[in-house]
Amino acid sequence: MLGEIDHIGIAVEDLDASIALYRDRFGMREQHREIVEEFGVEAALLEIGNAHVELVTPASADSALARFLERSGPGMHHVAYRTDDIDAALARMRESGVRLIDEQARTGIRDSRVAFVHPKSTGGVLTELVQPARHGAEDSHG
Amino acid sequence: MLGEIDHIGIAVEDLDASIALYRDRFGMREQHREIVEEFGVEAALLEIGNAHVELVTPASADSALARFLERSGPGMHHVAYRTDDIDAALARMRESGVRLIDEQARTGIRDSRVAFVHPKSTGGVLTELVQPARHGAEDSHG
Repeated sequence: MLGEIDHIGIAVEDLDASIALYRDRFGMREQHREIVEEFGVEAALLEIGNAHVELVTPASADSALARFLERSGPGMHHVAYRTDDIDAALARMRESGVRLIDEQARTGIRDSRVAFVHPKSTGGVLTELVQPARHGAEDSHG
Repeated sequence: MLGEIDHIGIAVEDLDASIALYRDRFGMREQHREIVEEFGVEAALLEIGNAHVELVTPASADSALARFLERSGPGMHHVAYRTDDIDAALARMRESGVRLIDEQARTGIRDSRVAFVHPKSTGGVLTELVQPARHGAEDSHG
């Protein structure tokens, strides 16, 4: 149902400084950067094997991420798993009683389709499902 | 320097219930379970692609993980990156001013060599380096 870890999401206050930190200290290259309107965030994808570290910072003051940073400060925000059929994955989870934040998939970074699962159903971990866009499959997950 | 995401570590209060939750809701199979004396924890590795979800619970009341659970409750605990030379990775990080929790590698799950990097040097994320044991390479990372 879930293929692999797509990315871990880290909430940061200064995107440029955080990109530099992960590049200089851990050797992770920036692959993509985008303002994701749907979520009111700006995100950068750093390469790590077949997965990514996603650094995210609020692009709007009323985003959920802005509230997270106010409450908890910078740090681990979510983990995302890749799926090739997010609608089926969501349907199966709904049937098995999983509490979803997004009942339907939304548009995520690089035109992926994404949905968040409530931490109450995952042992306290904000969890995202990601179905990469079809075009340029090798390049489009994130 | 760092090859890929090895696992994400999730702090849980009830290991059996959490293994069942991730199996039934996300289809992740338990691959390995072990009490890791060095860290005073009991851990289960669940398969997800070439990586793992590591569910960890305190095996001793004075473990760092017991204090984490008291303070923060269950949830995301750390992210681990795989390296094939942890001594070299630690030396390079030390030189570049990264604050290490473990100056030397310790023995982790499945005889891996592991070391933790301080969240102050990673944007607030407790970060682990993992060098898998050599024997049974395919099976030994974790």
